[in-house]
Amino acid sequence: MSPIAYSALGHRAQPPTIARLMTLMLENPKLLSIAAGFTDTKTLPVSVVQAAVDTLARREGDPEYLQYGTNQGRPKLRALLADRLLALETPSDADAVRKNVFVTNGSQQALYLAMQVLCDPGDIVLVDRPSYFVYLEMLAGLGVQTRSLPVDAAGRIDGPALRTLLADMRKTGELSRLKAVYFVSYFSNPSARSLDETEKNAIASALTEAGAIVPVLEDAAYRELYYERPHPARSVLSLPSWSAFPRLYFSTLTKTFASGLKVGYGTSSDAGLLAKMLHVKGHHDFGTANYNQALLEEVITQGGLDAQLAVIRAAYLRKMHALHGALVEAGLASLGWTWTVPEGGLYLWLTAPASLDTGLDAAFCRACVDAGVLYVPGELCFGHDAPKNHIRLSFGVLGEADLAEAGRRFTGVAKRFA
Amino acid sequence: MSPIAYSALGHRAQPPTIARLMTLMLENPKLLSIAAGFTDTKTLPVSVVQAAVDTLARREGDPEYLQYGTNQGRPKLRALLADRLLALETPSDADAVRKNVFVTNGSQQALYLAMQVLCDPGDIVLVDRPSYFVYLEMLAGLGVQTRSLPVDAAGRIDGPALRTLLADMRKTGELSRLKAVYFVSYFSNPSARSLDETEKNAIASALTEAGAIVPVLEDAAYRELYYERPHPARSVLSLPSWSAFPRLYFSTLTKTFASGLKVGYGTSSDAGLLAKMLHVKGHHDFGTANYNQALLEEVITQGGLDAQLAVIRAAYLRKMHALHGALVEAGLASLGWTWTVPEGGLYLWLTAPASLDTGLDAAFCRACVDAGVLYVPGELCFGHDAPKNHIRLSFGVLGEADLAEAGRRFTGVAKRFA
Repeated sequence: MSPIAYSALGHRAQPPTIARLMTLMLENPKLLSIAAGFTDTKTLPVSVVQAAVDTLARREGDPEYLQYGTNQGRPKLRALLADRLLALETPSDADAVRKNVFVTNGSQQALYLAMQVLCDPGDIVLVDRPSYFVYLEMLAGLGVQTRSLPVDAAGRIDGPALRTLLADMRKTGELSRLKAVYFVSYFSNPSARSLDETEKNAIASALTEAGAIVPVLEDAAYRELYYERPHPARSVLSLPSWSAFPRLYFSTLTKTFASGLKVGYGTSSDAGLLAKMLHVKGHHDFGTANYNQALLEEVITQGGLDAQLAVIRAAYLRKMHALHGALVEAGLASLGWTWTVPEGGLYLWLTAPASLDTGLDAAFCRACVDAGVLYVPGELCFGHDAPKNHIRLSFGVLGEADLAEAGRRFTGVAKRFA
Repeated sequence: MSPIAYSALGHRAQPPTIARLMTLMLENPKLLSIAAGFTDTKTLPVSVVQAAVDTLARREGDPEYLQYGTNQGRPKLRALLADRLLALETPSDADAVRKNVFVTNGSQQALYLAMQVLCDPGDIVLVDRPSYFVYLEMLAGLGVQTRSLPVDAAGRIDGPALRTLLADMRKTGELSRLKAVYFVSYFSNPSARSLDETEKNAIASALTEAGAIVPVLEDAAYRELYYERPHPARSVLSLPSWSAFPRLYFSTLTKTFASGLKVGYGTSSDAGLLAKMLHVKGHHDFGTANYNQALLEEVITQGGLDAQLAVIRAAYLRKMHALHGALVEAGLASLGWTWTVPEGGLYLWLTAPASLDTGLDAAFCRACVDAGVLYVPGELCFGHDAPKNHIRLSFGVLGEADLAEAGRRFTGVAKRFA
């Protein structure tokens, strides 16, 4: 048989690093995984879903919810999602934001569509540092390069350093290949940080000064997953500093309600950009499963999403403390490891002593697997110049007792490498 | 605001022609549409779905079906789908076919993934004539060119003409850009034809002779939608003439069960090709909605899919006769129009007298809209050299009375243009 002649994209398509983590899991069934960004299984909304399905089944008329839907998404669901977003903040162009709500197969597909219509291979995207590693792997698959938004020692956006970076990119001719800027802005995957308005404004002002008015992609997947109170920063949809930029805002009902339904959503300040993305979505699948959208429409209408959010906010706070507490109690901080206690989201972002290599092939990682605990190496979360001494831990899936045990095992290994 | 610098793909992304049909529908609410390839709404399996959801809700243990699933698809669903496929025919490499079953967002996404990993802009795909127009629009969006598999006056594959075409492509250097061959093989959209084994063998033998051992994509979306008996032809998975080719086989649970669940599936003879497609699916969405797959797993296990197929086979036969009968009774055949009575699927493929232009901008189409009936112009179903005198009618959605009325309106217009 002749070898298959793949496309350039086909040649670039490589097994994701996460596949190696999955293999480690399968080979070591007793591993406690604080690697995967999966959500809490115990609190999944079984009865809320069943109630919504029953309501659909009792509806008068044809069961259109089992029929094909529309490419952009169900009008009523889109209106409900717009209402929720507009309850959080007041965009200057609220009508456009409302009209341009779209529904995708998780927010992942929306990111893919945006990158497809904006970037050719060799183009450049500015990303946060650290950034969402599945997005970084997607960019690599599309042949798109990254530059990091510079941060200071505290992990905050460094405006002056960004100005220097953009000036350097202008000198080398790279600025003309800069096609978008991306960041996870609330309780970030992986850093657990939120960007405050000063930081968001600093990015906008450096780009404006450089004349680089490129589309901005704000990934707000975890915005509603705060523990006690929402983060106060407005999004790019409302901040005046971003008003001249084409803006895309991404969110999801996977992390907040049920990842098994795989429904994400977003909106755009720019109808033309959205139209391009939807044309390509027409080619991908001509619409996210209509049934799932109808179901979520019912769930939101019946108050099931807010009820679920109340449950999981409390659950993730408890689970965060179970893992964080175990690390503290076992003495990880005294070994020179640092991290910030999150106020939302599913992750702890650890910084190890600078000399420790936490990569997948390093002795530390193998020792953790041998000790029965698996994590995500922080090096995956950087588009380039990846430091080796970060680790992402997730308290999404495991229960509190397992999280405490995982924390003890992890710290035990850290002690041996101290 | 600066104009957005789109990618090459972004520039190619154009509103699909179907959007113009949708606009016509919205502007003319009294139109009877025999255009859309939607499925029958009255027979959608409400109680079967509800029973499956109840079974899931009563399951012991964690509700993992509301959690993220795997990228390739749920193992049990994949096994069930493999069983069904292997009950239809006996591939030489049954183990590979079983192992390589994958699940996608409708079969549309699988086609997109295959084209992404196989074709660069400017590459060429051989397509059936006529072909599935959403696939043709996808190819245009990806910058991929088409050549048609030559057919004789009866619409059957013309082997000698294909040999000549491939020889010509060799002379012009185009053969090296030929990356795949695609056809809808059972009760086709749009032609309602099935390819018999002689025709499939003729394609394989011409390609083999030309040394063009490129991946073949067999789209079997309508295979199970026969009215009285399955079409006897084996697929490329089992025909010895195709055994040297990398083979992809696509099917779906949308048309056969519920389009609202948007679950398609397929398999591949080639693990390497599948792996590439799955890497890209990891970037699109890292897995089709796990809930929908769990639901369909239950449906198939409980016998709900076969029960639904029994219902809709009878329903589509009745509906086909309602439309076909109305056209015959109103005298369309005596005006020089020809068509074949389908033995499965959702479509009638009409050939008008050669001089009649049925395109979207033609007087005939406008007259039909004025008379309250909408169809799909056949010209959309050709990658190039589109004849103007074909029409696709769908009896998928409307009930029998509406189909009869639509047939009368349509024939009334045809009489005025005779």
